[in-house]
Amino acid sequence: MQLTGRQKEITRIVRENGPITGEMIAERLHVTRSALRGDLAVLLSGEVIAARRRLGYYYLGGGEDPAAAEIRSCTAESCMSRPIVVNVDTNAYDAAVLLFTEDIGTLFVGKEDDVLGVVSRKDLLKAAMGREDLAKVPISMVMTSRSKMIYAEPKEDMVSIAQKLIDYEIDCLPVGTFKDVGGEKKFVLQGRISKTNITRLFLDLGKGKQ
Amino acid sequence: MQLTGRQKEITRIVRENGPITGEMIAERLHVTRSALRGDLAVLLSGEVIAARRRLGYYYLGGGEDPAAAEIRSCTAESCMSRPIVVNVDTNAYDAAVLLFTEDIGTLFVGKEDDVLGVVSRKDLLKAAMGREDLAKVPISMVMTSRSKMIYAEPKEDMVSIAQKLIDYEIDCLPVGTFKDVGGEKKFVLQGRISKTNITRLFLDLGKGKQ
Repeated sequence: MQLTGRQKEITRIVRENGPITGEMIAERLHVTRSALRGDLAVLLSGEVIAARRRLGYYYLGGGEDPAAAEIRSCTAESCMSRPIVVNVDTNAYDAAVLLFTEDIGTLFVGKEDDVLGVVSRKDLLKAAMGREDLAKVPISMVMTSRSKMIYAEPKEDMVSIAQKLIDYEIDCLPVGTFKDVGGEKKFVLQGRISKTNITRLFLDLGKGKQ
Repeated sequence: MQLTGRQKEITRIVRENGPITGEMIAERLHVTRSALRGDLAVLLSGEVIAARRRLGYYYLGGGEDPAAAEIRSCTAESCMSRPIVVNVDTNAYDAAVLLFTEDIGTLFVGKEDDVLGVVSRKDLLKAAMGREDLAKVPISMVMTSRSKMIYAEPKEDMVSIAQKLIDYEIDCLPVGTFKDVGGEKKFVLQGRISKTNITRLFLDLGKGKQ
């Protein structure tokens, strides 16, 4: 079924927030409740949403962009690349060399089953601008440490990951999970997702390969 | 109409290469001509493709992923960001500072109506690793010059642009056109498209906002 822009927007609001009252939908769209009546009728008759007394509207399925549905079905696991991990003893110069030899933009520091931080091309350029000898700068001085690290769960969908990349202005996220190992919290790395992976996915979708 | 993976692949081949003979399609898919008979019949009856004697199969429209059609309708012009241009006299240190203050990954060198080259974070990090004082390195020594510059036309679709970003392993393309000005070829800049723009577009498509 072909929905208008506003109908799609209502569908999204109901899907993400339902059950939700008509008043609340109207408020989010900055329109009056009565201005929504027609659109809600269309969505109800098309069984995209349903209504229950005292509860509000809830999402039934469909009615959304096929592109959106297709994109939301992609998860980190199915799109991630192999991560490159360097020892915490590495210096910033050697880390930068590795970025070039591996042709990547981001490195992880520590071990695959215990990541301590993440280093990007941007971090290394900033360090280099300090005019210090990069070979004398420990990677741990340059990295973003685990406690501040933004990451993706293996089952996380790619839209949520793209949102993180944009919101936090980063190029690459580690994919993995925090695990309790003998009372200690460790980040176990499984992969990485960068804007390059998103671009590749976009390309596949655009070519109809997904 | 719901097509199988192979039917979508045939549709793509016919769309991109038609008119094309059945033998040529079979060759591209590494199957025999007779193995295609069923799929071609489906596509012909669904009026996704048509056939003409001595000419072969050609594309009629539809039959492709709605996601693919939606993605192909986005052009550089509608998605590009404002480009930052620095004078050719700038040194590499000042250029790197500008990357940080503007929070971007790529700068253009020259003037908006006469771009001489492009400089990325990667180029600057490479220069910094040479252990020279970046403030003494002219930007022209670091940049990729116009003759080797990969660029996008304003009307170019985003799938073609994503393909360039992946194929040439670059993060950002200038959007513009070459113009003859008094016998001289000049690149006139209109915008830039980076993997960040693609990620944003992916996000919009995933949320059903496009």
